[in-house]
Amino acid sequence: MTVELYDTTLRDGTQQEGISLSVEDKLRVARTIDALGVPYIEGGWPGANPKDTEFFKRAAAGELELANATLVAFGMTRKPNRDAAGDENLAALLAAATPIVTLVGKSDIRHVTHAINTTGEENLAMLQSSFELIRGEGRRAFYDAEHFFDGYRRDRAYALDALRAAIAGGAECVVLCDTNGGMLPREVEQVVADVVAEVGGDGPGGVQVGIHVHNDTDCAVANSLIAMDAGVTHVQGTLNGIGERTGNANLSSIIPNLTLKMGMTDVVGDGAVGRITHIAHQVAEIMNLSVRPSAPYVGNAAFAHKAGLHVSALAKDTDLYQHVDPGSVGNRIRLLVSELAGRATVVMKGADMGLDLDSADAMAILERVKELEHLGYSFEAADASFELLVRRHTGQDVERFVLESFRTIVERREDGSMVAEATVKVWVGDTRLIGVGEGNGPVSALDHAFRAAIGGVLPLDELHLADYKVRILDAKAGTNATTRVLITSSDADREYTTVGVDANVIEASWQAMSDAYTASLLAREGA
Amino acid sequence: MTVELYDTTLRDGTQQEGISLSVEDKLRVARTIDALGVPYIEGGWPGANPKDTEFFKRAAAGELELANATLVAFGMTRKPNRDAAGDENLAALLAAATPIVTLVGKSDIRHVTHAINTTGEENLAMLQSSFELIRGEGRRAFYDAEHFFDGYRRDRAYALDALRAAIAGGAECVVLCDTNGGMLPREVEQVVADVVAEVGGDGPGGVQVGIHVHNDTDCAVANSLIAMDAGVTHVQGTLNGIGERTGNANLSSIIPNLTLKMGMTDVVGDGAVGRITHIAHQVAEIMNLSVRPSAPYVGNAAFAHKAGLHVSALAKDTDLYQHVDPGSVGNRIRLLVSELAGRATVVMKGADMGLDLDSADAMAILERVKELEHLGYSFEAADASFELLVRRHTGQDVERFVLESFRTIVERREDGSMVAEATVKVWVGDTRLIGVGEGNGPVSALDHAFRAAIGGVLPLDELHLADYKVRILDAKAGTNATTRVLITSSDADREYTTVGVDANVIEASWQAMSDAYTASLLAREGA
Repeated sequence: MTVELYDTTLRDGTQQEGISLSVEDKLRVARTIDALGVPYIEGGWPGANPKDTEFFKRAAAGELELANATLVAFGMTRKPNRDAAGDENLAALLAAATPIVTLVGKSDIRHVTHAINTTGEENLAMLQSSFELIRGEGRRAFYDAEHFFDGYRRDRAYALDALRAAIAGGAECVVLCDTNGGMLPREVEQVVADVVAEVGGDGPGGVQVGIHVHNDTDCAVANSLIAMDAGVTHVQGTLNGIGERTGNANLSSIIPNLTLKMGMTDVVGDGAVGRITHIAHQVAEIMNLSVRPSAPYVGNAAFAHKAGLHVSALAKDTDLYQHVDPGSVGNRIRLLVSELAGRATVVMKGADMGLDLDSADAMAILERVKELEHLGYSFEAADASFELLVRRHTGQDVERFVLESFRTIVERREDGSMVAEATVKVWVGDTRLIGVGEGNGPVSALDHAFRAAIGGVLPLDELHLADYKVRILDAKAGTNATTRVLITSSDADREYTTVGVDANVIEASWQAMSDAYTASLLAREGA
Repeated sequence: MTVELYDTTLRDGTQQEGISLSVEDKLRVARTIDALGVPYIEGGWPGANPKDTEFFKRAAAGELELANATLVAFGMTRKPNRDAAGDENLAALLAAATPIVTLVGKSDIRHVTHAINTTGEENLAMLQSSFELIRGEGRRAFYDAEHFFDGYRRDRAYALDALRAAIAGGAECVVLCDTNGGMLPREVEQVVADVVAEVGGDGPGGVQVGIHVHNDTDCAVANSLIAMDAGVTHVQGTLNGIGERTGNANLSSIIPNLTLKMGMTDVVGDGAVGRITHIAHQVAEIMNLSVRPSAPYVGNAAFAHKAGLHVSALAKDTDLYQHVDPGSVGNRIRLLVSELAGRATVVMKGADMGLDLDSADAMAILERVKELEHLGYSFEAADASFELLVRRHTGQDVERFVLESFRTIVERREDGSMVAEATVKVWVGDTRLIGVGEGNGPVSALDHAFRAAIGGVLPLDELHLADYKVRILDAKAGTNATTRVLITSSDADREYTTVGVDANVIEASWQAMSDAYTASLLAREGA
């Protein structure tokens, strides 16, 4: 069995409620997914909105160099009763300048007559001529047969005719879409087997057959696998299963299923399955989503074990209680009541910093981490803050400045203009320094004021803040909720991620910035 | 085809990280689930913890009158090398006084020898004698064959012997458990078919065969359905798919699949499928969980439509774009407004507000939405801000106050204490009002200052902020990045979600709060 995976996180995935990505976000997601080594990444729908158009423009201008995947642009077949050559949507698609184009088009006769108000015959002509235009420009082309399964139920012959029209126009792969997501595995299997027999690669003039399903019956992953059994060799899905309504088939589940359970080691890049937990979380992070804890393979609870029988047996023989080794997907076991695993982690982290922590130290640090996490801190990403915590705990002198006080003022004036201003008072050794700064908002003003105060005394010129994230914890408390700020900063040498937590967003931001300043100063000293 | 559903929300479901129910909670959940009309509800493990013991005691004392389901108590087979009659776990189970008992016992030879350190023969004796004891007390008995699929792979003959020992002891149903959740549909089908042929109801001395799966391969629902195809007639699962790690098979998906797609109208009570959205949310509410928006059938986004293409067709013919009628599961359609939406969405939304928008209006509003989304606004969730935008566009007078200016001050003092303070100057008609407020942070101070200013003049006492979200757009710009704030507020009548965007988080928060004030004031006027 063989299969080519087609990632549509950036196109169909972004149909999910609440997802709105900047062009910069889209470029970062594409680069992140490319690390998986899937052959196809669908980037968006050029012409449908300014962002997607700009995404492809910047990709074509060299801002998106993919090491593994081929970038695909998505669009629709031409409008009824006009020339393909004069269709502005197809023109926008071609302008995106991707090697491959995926065209969505109708295959359900009722959608033809009721949604786009044309005839079955004209839709077939739309399909064939649109593909001919794309192929004539030297592009490869795939056909997303929209509502295929509903169409097949309604009028099998017409649904197959639609596929044949696309093939006649030059489509090299026809993708059967369960657009409404209503299919159950048994019927998927039957329909796919029939289609593969009719137009699949082994028959005369046959092409590759693919599958694209949604999760409305909670069967999207299984439907994709069952379709492979029935002969598809192209599977579309999204990272973390994001997508409209209930989401698309989840590649974060499909990839480990194929790789670890079905022995298909070449569906992603060498070793990529071992990074899938990291990649899934990274993509979610860029989209400002969380991976749900119960997500198969990549969720934070996917290998979490409760107390008692399991955990003691787990120590003897992990195979007995886990369907795969968590490390094989880059995830880890979590023992929900035992701190044993945690202590070992702390000792290992200490060794990374060149510190030889004994078990009592590790235990005490772990207790402190637990207290802080209870308050809302999270050290999983904030390595630099964790390192400072460990150094402080072991009695190292890490403070290079001591804050006396700060004040930030934000004003909206009568003319509607905004002013943000801050003052900082800080001690470096025996010297008291005062600075004032302005900014776009209170946090940038505070950053500028601190730098003004310590300018010339502490070397922070190279440090700049690269990423700033705010999470509201306990959001139900409204504007009184606790705020967690995560900041990533970088200087010439390194990146630092730091964390701050407080009911006041300014104080939380100060904590995270202050840890970043300290970490960078220590790094410059070679600590 | 026929099947009996077995709900284990209260036993296996509560193994999920973070779930801890009081006895009162458990009684409420049981009553809520009973409304579905499933034949079996597993209430817990009497003897394993004081809460479950008390639950059964109170149930037996008449506090839990189930109209439809039979209550089941769960426990383990006797310990090795002792009498079933002297086993305190079995005694606790019998004391629970339920008509049915489910016993879990080993069926994987490696678990027998490595986890409970006994012999294969002794485990078979444990199974048979435990069931004999339960049956001797006049109870019906089911066998949960733990790790059955792993055991079958390792030693098929032993796994079948375990089933036969339970049957010999009097088990009337043997439930094949994929305890580690690692199975894919094809293998489930093969194993189940073999087991049904060996011990299933049609053979000599055959019994009912059941299935209990977890979602570790993202196939739990499909595995349950496939097992039915292969002959099981008893399916275990949980509401909302809660459970350890990745969760159990999701009854909230299985019930509509069986009822609406497979025509099995008698698996739940008359009309119960039409209440499943309500029941799923109610159970989640009691457990202090949220139903995830993307949950099939019952999630808030299960029938949400975003793409413009879809929505215009949806208006014509809802069947074309929905796999089932949302009302058939007690859910509803939601149309999301975004740059991906089309004119039809805007017209339909306008109609919801009682506004008759023409096509030119809709187009102009959509253009404005696109411009604002390009700046970072997002109206998909922010219904109340969208409604204000439409009302303003159509020339309605919606402003109930006009901001003159505000100032917020956040200070961190020498002693480390934080102070947040704000002043607001605002006009209501010809009256200029001034207010000052303090808060945990600058935004709550601003909220308090505004309310102090307009107190007694505008009726906002009932409005409170229920949810506050901050999203940093273009986070690479560090502390200079654009900030989007989404606020959900509620008053006695309604919920309002509003949005604000600015480089300054305070201004962005003001915009969202200010829309919330306005929306609530308009609602009170009956606008």
